[in-house]
Amino acid sequence: MKNRAITSRDVDFAKWYTDVVSAASLADYSNVKGCIVIEPNGYAIWERIMQELDAMFKATGHKNVYMPLLIPENLINKESDLINGFAPEVAWVTIGGQKKLEERLCIRPTSETLFSDYYSSVLKSYRDLPMKYNQWCNVMRWEKETRPFLRSREFLWQEGHTIHETSNEAENETRNMLEIYRKFFEEFLAIPVITGRKTEKEKFAGAEYTLTIEALMYNGISLQSGTSHYFGQKFSKSYDIKFLNRNNELEYAYQTSWGVSTRMIGALIMVHSDDNGLVLPPKIAPKQVVIVKIGDNDSVNKMSEEIFNKLANNNISVYIDDSDKSPGFKFAEAEVNGVPIRIEIGERDLKNNQITVVRRDTREKQALDVNTDIASYTIDLMNKMQNEMFNKALERNKTKTYECHDLKTFEKIMQDKPGFIIADWCGDEACELKIKEIRGTKSRCILENHKHIDGKCIVCGKEAKHTVLWGIQY
Amino acid sequence: MKNRAITSRDVDFAKWYTDVVSAASLADYSNVKGCIVIEPNGYAIWERIMQELDAMFKATGHKNVYMPLLIPENLINKESDLINGFAPEVAWVTIGGQKKLEERLCIRPTSETLFSDYYSSVLKSYRDLPMKYNQWCNVMRWEKETRPFLRSREFLWQEGHTIHETSNEAENETRNMLEIYRKFFEEFLAIPVITGRKTEKEKFAGAEYTLTIEALMYNGISLQSGTSHYFGQKFSKSYDIKFLNRNNELEYAYQTSWGVSTRMIGALIMVHSDDNGLVLPPKIAPKQVVIVKIGDNDSVNKMSEEIFNKLANNNISVYIDDSDKSPGFKFAEAEVNGVPIRIEIGERDLKNNQITVVRRDTREKQALDVNTDIASYTIDLMNKMQNEMFNKALERNKTKTYECHDLKTFEKIMQDKPGFIIADWCGDEACELKIKEIRGTKSRCILENHKHIDGKCIVCGKEAKHTVLWGIQY
Repeated sequence: MKNRAITSRDVDFAKWYTDVVSAASLADYSNVKGCIVIEPNGYAIWERIMQELDAMFKATGHKNVYMPLLIPENLINKESDLINGFAPEVAWVTIGGQKKLEERLCIRPTSETLFSDYYSSVLKSYRDLPMKYNQWCNVMRWEKETRPFLRSREFLWQEGHTIHETSNEAENETRNMLEIYRKFFEEFLAIPVITGRKTEKEKFAGAEYTLTIEALMYNGISLQSGTSHYFGQKFSKSYDIKFLNRNNELEYAYQTSWGVSTRMIGALIMVHSDDNGLVLPPKIAPKQVVIVKIGDNDSVNKMSEEIFNKLANNNISVYIDDSDKSPGFKFAEAEVNGVPIRIEIGERDLKNNQITVVRRDTREKQALDVNTDIASYTIDLMNKMQNEMFNKALERNKTKTYECHDLKTFEKIMQDKPGFIIADWCGDEACELKIKEIRGTKSRCILENHKHIDGKCIVCGKEAKHTVLWGIQY
Repeated sequence: MKNRAITSRDVDFAKWYTDVVSAASLADYSNVKGCIVIEPNGYAIWERIMQELDAMFKATGHKNVYMPLLIPENLINKESDLINGFAPEVAWVTIGGQKKLEERLCIRPTSETLFSDYYSSVLKSYRDLPMKYNQWCNVMRWEKETRPFLRSREFLWQEGHTIHETSNEAENETRNMLEIYRKFFEEFLAIPVITGRKTEKEKFAGAEYTLTIEALMYNGISLQSGTSHYFGQKFSKSYDIKFLNRNNELEYAYQTSWGVSTRMIGALIMVHSDDNGLVLPPKIAPKQVVIVKIGDNDSVNKMSEEIFNKLANNNISVYIDDSDKSPGFKFAEAEVNGVPIRIEIGERDLKNNQITVVRRDTREKQALDVNTDIASYTIDLMNKMQNEMFNKALERNKTKTYECHDLKTFEKIMQDKPGFIIADWCGDEACELKIKEIRGTKSRCILENHKHIDGKCIVCGKEAKHTVLWGIQY
């Protein structure tokens, strides 16, 4: 049994976060430094995420593959930006089968290298294009400080890697995949995001440009939640990914990659959950409804079965908590685990032809006539909850998003009531670094098609090139 | 485009095997020694396998989790049998984040260690039992000789790890999971298997005993296809997995583990496929039906759409090959890729109110009246094919299974027409090793409840303890 005590999120947010992770049995610390055990409740969320995203990928013509875990040093060295970007944080295998290896192998921090190497060996003609592949796998980055789901040495993710005949098609892919991420975050995770382009400093090592979705947590800290990269021909030149084009000339392919990770589970916690534990949007909750019986007589059992069947027959993920725990314990457990709807069926209620429905997000109770069409009622309630959770997060984001005109105010906001700051920037990295001195604030993304705030850089006062979203990051 | 030339399996089976893997685009060699790229066609089979097996695991109360990839040396050393068994074939990470690690970490060859460590930290009372967890993941064993899907340094698998209150319950779990494997192989993969218990020499390092399913390939070589291990309290003592039992005393838990891997894809090839490429049983084929149009007029297009919809609406996995290749090319491609049923829709046929259906396994063609209920017809045909593929493999196994009474005949069989040999054994490892001198033949399993053949050991002539299934192994 896990410790159920949860620190208040307004008292100590970091402690609250790890308390929720533990109390809801999402993950456990392991004896492998910087790595976690994803427990059944956490993994079930990941399975739901994979299910929905994978269907979206396949519906847009992507296929799954599996690339090797290990990358030979000479292969990763072929792309200098990539190795420079990842060298500080890779793990190296140097011994295999009791022998020192002639060439060391790194555990993939990401798989551009292996996809590129594969594409270069199989691509022949424009007729083979596009190749739109994805893999669900583990990757490893040797982080110093770790936090469950948000930053750990090993994490699970998907990485899409595609090659195309034209830059136009590849750029469209880059945008389309960002749009899939946006849609998934907003419609399934009920998490509003801001989309935009990373600055040169913050873009992926080796990309022409990186698009990103950025989310804001309950405490005003921002979370880079998914990225989509356009590589142009950069990797295809390093890895020799060529094809015979329609003019029968050899041409380098145009490439993209994009990924989201188990970090999304961290976002779900930090956006929706509360001092009673996990809160999950119905559309992503592995279990949407729990039925708890109060008492054990025939009418209670019969009604439970009946409601269970009605919900299950309407594709609602429902279970009856049939353990030998007390009803109060079952309520608390379903609550801490974030089951969106709880249906209580009690002897006394049934005498009045009633059952009780409790929604997890607001904890509101509703007495319901037993003759209600329970499946329709539940579906409507889940839709309502899904929308309200999104809107609540959106409203909070609005109160935590500031347009800012001077550095002093900028600093005061980030110190007192952090959130997203929108401010103009000249495009100079020196000014970006100046802002980083304020609690490590980084540019989240360049807001495309956004009107300038003042027309001048908030740091140096020179002419503004971009309007930028800034935030303190996880 | 892949090389489509396939060596005949009766001429050079090993070459035929790799030709099929390549021609059907199942896997590609990578530049990472001993590791393969699982290509879309191969991964789609793995997805189907995961889908079906995962549902069977969940229906029997198992939950998925995820354990770390890396195991600290001190942790794996806690169980001496385990480390002795796996030490020769693990890969070690010695550098992380540009620093030499204080303690090296091995990439999991299997995860008994980490599950045990986790269980020891969370298990408190008999009320927490059983804990029945599984994970789908990659593992690594530093093999010297590798072959796609059959033996590679990295492979994908599932590993179930459970702990129980009593030995009886754990032993039942061990048997039940073997039975799930048997059922899956026979009903989905259409591969008949023999079940039994491994000898002491062949059992899993650290297990009390290992149960196995053994399959026979087209060429008479046997393949260990899935194993289920009973650990008793061996690991729970090494890793201190204790619980307060019903008498309020501390007791060590009873443990099992069980796994199957991407090796199953190798079995599918070697049992069912032929000189024209891959043959897949309909129940596991990612795409069950391909529709190929001959000509491009309205009636052909309309009929294709109609049939597509009828099949898709009946949950048959169907696609229309709409590429700009010739019909002949499309036929060949669907054939090499192992699509179970091909429906040809041509102008000339339609004038006679006919379409043509071709089954992949026998390559039989059937003209069909357009008014046939195509969905029912296809479902019936798929069931028929599924049964016939199983029976064909079963019949072949019968002709390649020999009861044997003396070593000379044993040797002659294994040299001339290898297969499964059933012979008695005294239980002495020396006799097992003697048999290994014959083309590396190993005991596949002890046949439980099998009558003795002669009552004496085929090697030494002493009293027989077990009747054993012997075979040359992959």
